[in-house]
Amino acid sequence: MKHFTKIAGLAALAAVAALPALAQDAAVVADAPPAEVPTDVAFILNTLLFLIGGFLVFWMAAGFAMLEAGLVRSKNVAMQCLKNVALFSIACTMYYLIGYNLMYPLGSWTIGSDETGGYLGAFSVAVLEAVGVTADAVDDYSYASTGSDFFFQVMFCATTASIVSGTLAERIRLWPFLAFTVVLTALIYPIQASWKWGGGFLDAAGFLDFAGSTVVHSVGGWAALAGALILGPRLGKYRDGRVVAFPGSNLTLATLGTFILWLGWFGFNGASQLAMGTIADVADISRVFVNTNSAAAGGSIAALILTQLVYKKADLTMVLNGALAGLVSITAEPLTPTIGGALLIGAVGGVLVVLTVPLLDKLKIDDVVGAIPVHLVCGIWGTLAVVLSNPDATLGAQLMGIIVVGIFVFVVSAVVWLILKAVMGLRASAEEETLGFDKAELGLEAYPEFTKL
Amino acid sequence: MKHFTKIAGLAALAAVAALPALAQDAAVVADAPPAEVPTDVAFILNTLLFLIGGFLVFWMAAGFAMLEAGLVRSKNVAMQCLKNVALFSIACTMYYLIGYNLMYPLGSWTIGSDETGGYLGAFSVAVLEAVGVTADAVDDYSYASTGSDFFFQVMFCATTASIVSGTLAERIRLWPFLAFTVVLTALIYPIQASWKWGGGFLDAAGFLDFAGSTVVHSVGGWAALAGALILGPRLGKYRDGRVVAFPGSNLTLATLGTFILWLGWFGFNGASQLAMGTIADVADISRVFVNTNSAAAGGSIAALILTQLVYKKADLTMVLNGALAGLVSITAEPLTPTIGGALLIGAVGGVLVVLTVPLLDKLKIDDVVGAIPVHLVCGIWGTLAVVLSNPDATLGAQLMGIIVVGIFVFVVSAVVWLILKAVMGLRASAEEETLGFDKAELGLEAYPEFTKL
Amino acid sequence: MKHFTKIAGLAALAAVAALPALAQDAAVVADAPPAEVPTDVAFILNTLLFLIGGFLVFWMAAGFAMLEAGLVRSKNVAMQCLKNVALFSIACTMYYLIGYNLMYPLGSWTIGSDETGGYLGAFSVAVLEAVGVTADAVDDYSYASTGSDFFFQVMFCATTASIVSGTLAERIRLWPFLAFTVVLTALIYPIQASWKWGGGFLDAAGFLDFAGSTVVHSVGGWAALAGALILGPRLGKYRDGRVVAFPGSNLTLATLGTFILWLGWFGFNGASQLAMGTIADVADISRVFVNTNSAAAGGSIAALILTQLVYKKADLTMVLNGALAGLVSITAEPLTPTIGGALLIGAVGGVLVVLTVPLLDKLKIDDVVGAIPVHLVCGIWGTLAVVLSNPDATLGAQLMGIIVVGIFVFVVSAVVWLILKAVMGLRASAEEETLGFDKAELGLEAYPEFTKL
Repeated sequence: MKHFTKIAGLAALAAVAALPALAQDAAVVADAPPAEVPTDVAFILNTLLFLIGGFLVFWMAAGFAMLEAGLVRSKNVAMQCLKNVALFSIACTMYYLIGYNLMYPLGSWTIGSDETGGYLGAFSVAVLEAVGVTADAVDDYSYASTGSDFFFQVMFCATTASIVSGTLAERIRLWPFLAFTVVLTALIYPIQASWKWGGGFLDAAGFLDFAGSTVVHSVGGWAALAGALILGPRLGKYRDGRVVAFPGSNLTLATLGTFILWLGWFGFNGASQLAMGTIADVADISRVFVNTNSAAAGGSIAALILTQLVYKKADLTMVLNGALAGLVSITAEPLTPTIGGALLIGAVGGVLVVLTVPLLDKLKIDDVVGAIPVHLVCGIWGTLAVVLSNPDATLGAQLMGIIVVGIFVFVVSAVVWLILKAVMGLRASAEEETLGFDKAELGLEAYPEFTKL
Repeated sequence: MKHFTKIAGLAALAAVAALPALAQDAAVVADAPPAEVPTDVAFILNTLLFLIGGFLVFWMAAGFAMLEAGLVRSKNVAMQCLKNVALFSIACTMYYLIGYNLMYPLGSWTIGSDETGGYLGAFSVAVLEAVGVTADAVDDYSYASTGSDFFFQVMFCATTASIVSGTLAERIRLWPFLAFTVVLTALIYPIQASWKWGGGFLDAAGFLDFAGSTVVHSVGGWAALAGALILGPRLGKYRDGRVVAFPGSNLTLATLGTFILWLGWFGFNGASQLAMGTIADVADISRVFVNTNSAAAGGSIAALILTQLVYKKADLTMVLNGALAGLVSITAEPLTPTIGGALLIGAVGGVLVVLTVPLLDKLKIDDVVGAIPVHLVCGIWGTLAVVLSNPDATLGAQLMGIIVVGIFVFVVSAVVWLILKAVMGLRASAEEETLGFDKAELGLEAYPEFTKL
Repeated sequence: MKHFTKIAGLAALAAVAALPALAQDAAVVADAPPAEVPTDVAFILNTLLFLIGGFLVFWMAAGFAMLEAGLVRSKNVAMQCLKNVALFSIACTMYYLIGYNLMYPLGSWTIGSDETGGYLGAFSVAVLEAVGVTADAVDDYSYASTGSDFFFQVMFCATTASIVSGTLAERIRLWPFLAFTVVLTALIYPIQASWKWGGGFLDAAGFLDFAGSTVVHSVGGWAALAGALILGPRLGKYRDGRVVAFPGSNLTLATLGTFILWLGWFGFNGASQLAMGTIADVADISRVFVNTNSAAAGGSIAALILTQLVYKKADLTMVLNGALAGLVSITAEPLTPTIGGALLIGAVGGVLVVLTVPLLDKLKIDDVVGAIPVHLVCGIWGTLAVVLSNPDATLGAQLMGIIVVGIFVFVVSAVVWLILKAVMGLRASAEEETLGFDKAELGLEAYPEFTKL
């Protein structure tokens, strides 16, 4: 603090905060030294944050693709790759057509309002700012460019859809899955997300979810759970009262996918700070990066130790899911915990995954990649864990958010799955499933030259 | 606009625009509030844009490597990896030695001038600014550091070379391919790029190419086409009047490569805005990011639907190439289209790929990875599509650019390929090609332990 | 320089340099035009540099994982993946608990002091700045947020540990390896790093190491060498006086890993500039990016040509290691060389790797991935090469750093390895090693469906 007087510091901070114009006037009057962030610079930095965060979250789409391609059997690998590319493309299209303004109605709620809390947003296509837009014409001069906001938010919508594809792998046909993705990314995700991030009634109720343990991860998990229940398990998975292991065909890909997701999560959580134009914001982003990383480390170490203790074997796939569990667990509140707190929150997530995976199998819910334990169970845990470090959180509001979103997404997803089942059917025939989707639906193979067992 | 008066806004914008010194004087006289971007900050932000954009485009080198390694047969995979690493390294070396100043002569044209339009740039080695350079000593204070510019531009040169390697895979020997790469990256790419981006005669003629549908992608495509015609198809590819499918050996790698390229393209197109120091620039970059992403989505969806309709099977490799086709198609103008426009421009690209791939096979032009449909055909389409959204574009100038660059690159490439064929030979022997390049030229295998069909 | 007067320029530069407060006063008095970087903006940009650099170095963890998974035999691939995830998580945990303040005691040396040069730092847990910290409360207003610094530094600690795992692959058991990682990341790495980067006695002696050719890479190399000597070679590696080749099982993964590492290195070296808030700093970062890239290119080309000349076959794994060798070689001084100088420094690294790999085999030191040639030999070379371009470097100080760090790390590592050998044993049984670690210790396989030779 040697080089900075307290008064100048406060003026500088005010200048970049909620009322830039007033603060700027004050700054001019006070002839303040140029320590503060010019408002144009703050706009640029905020926008840059969304662009970097957005491309990192984009990268998570590749992570899901590799994770799932590595965890399915080789006869379904190409299909899993195709589904992941296609679902991402569909999410981008539907979010543009419907989702974005449904999620961020900005006062134009179809049901509800910004003041009383909204329930259903606006139906219109996303529109970007004009080319070469100037400060006096941008949509929100105190925030960031609309294009960067859209870019960042569309990636969250796509992430939600990515979660579903892993659980339902190896038995759902391509087109009904993509049809569900259309509904999920056009309606289900944006509507419930508007309740919190669009300024809707859950936000008004004090529900806190920094980057989406509930809004993104549990939503993917609930949709996947509904699908798994309606779809049923893969042929031969539960036979004569026991669980048959279907080992993933390529664990290096699964490992790569986990590292990709871990990397992308820095953008997912970090850019959810939504601003980088002040010292406070950038320092908070730094905290988020450290805590996100620590939670992943805690989750993987916990899963490693626990599998060694319980099964007498360290289990690579559990360690990978442990890292992801830690990431999901910290996502609702990556800012306020200490590093040690983040490690522990992540570690609990890792433990939950190791315990929940066999539990699902007992219930004969077939989740090919463990997405329900990772994204739903840890999404709930992470949402509850907000109260441990954030004094603004209440257990009641957190539970309300978890339950409201859970019921909405599970019920609507189930209805959509059932309609799709009735209209076009969900599952491949037993012959096709046994043959594998790559040959049955795509007419090619992921690894055509390698002989298989 | 609540927090910003129109007059102050205009002053701020002027201050960071073309005439910073004058505007700064005005700002001092007017005692303007500190909303505007200091010129040093603009320089830093511009430089940062090139560094981020550059490392993203670097990443595309890995994308090409994975895409190609996944689409060749396993007996040629290690060779394809080696070629991709080596061509990148050669491109970086040649661009430093010759290419950079040949492309950006900055008034030192060997033939032509900045005023009349240049034809051939300067022959000299790239030189960076001094260590610890200050504002009064930088090469261009209104732009960005020379090092960052070089870093960004060298990646474009390398990208061009990457495009060629896929088409000619599985039959061209290592050293003649690398010899061609030397000429391509030292001379062919920089010379034609100088015509547009170095301020040469195509730029003077009003030809528009934002990030290189023609300057990069079609150039790689023309060089590949010339090579494919001179080299001939792989042994057994066209047999008894029918096309024999040689399935790619590892479609997860091809999928990964596509995602990598998609990610890298945000840097490729986004940083081609060339500035991030104003609100207008960063908002434009945001538009570019969104449109780039949307075009890829449109291309993959179009390819998915079209292959399902035409072949009754969704085709993963076509969907991957569809995404890449969308990306190439939007590259000439990712700024001015609406999101919906970008989706459609990309979708047309996806359709073009699905239609062109079998067409090439009918012509017995053997393009192993589909680089000619993706980079040449869609490069042309994207260059023409500029006129759909950018009022500054004329069909005449766009056609002129496409044709001039096409003739130059195709003819010079063909001459170089023919010289290399005469001097050192291009193809491996039939025995070596049948055995595979990995064993024949490298003495190793990419997957030595997996038994093959 | 047209738009910038020399005097204003100097004032602007002073304002963002070592004494911001004084310079700001001067600026106010002089009513300087707003060309200079506000101190808050510099803080934000510095922090952003660490966040971007940090996530790029994080990505190197994935690179090591893929490189090593690709270079081991398929029966040990899952174990290699597991080790890489686990060592990273452990490094993050130990660096938080002990390493960070041990490395950066900031005046609180346990032995020594900032003035006389420190030898042993402080033992305490890392603590971040408070949420929403303001300029007057940040730990160092002239630098960057503590969280971003921690995030960047923890990745260097993890990188060091990653280097060790490759050398010792295919024979060391999981838990003793992880136990060594605990000691390496909690004590060995931070203590020696404090001697240079924490302001300790090597820094006082004039030892220069920009981004860690010695502090990171040689440290990993020495620890690996000590382990390799104590552990002994893999069964059957040296038989009847000849070296048996154990080819890597998946060279596309090794190639991918190399590209990942290359990408990550831009953050590793670039963000080691430690500041981005001035024109000088961002231009220097640009130089570092270009030189880092050039050295990798030089290393791979040198290895390509040399293996072709010596063995009459281009060797993909040597070319990959050549690129990495170039990267390690430039790491001690990526700023001051010219582009051509960086190419040559990298090329020498590439040559050293091609010459050293067979030398190690002659000494029957079994280094599975070539980490000792790449990280130790080229780490030494790069540290010495500083004197070629940086006039502040002396051969004496460079040798002193190399030797002091080398002796410390090798001796302490050897002691730790010997203790672990005595306490828990290091190697698997011959049966387990022959069976492979994936089945023996993990109970799964990385590629369960592919039949193997």
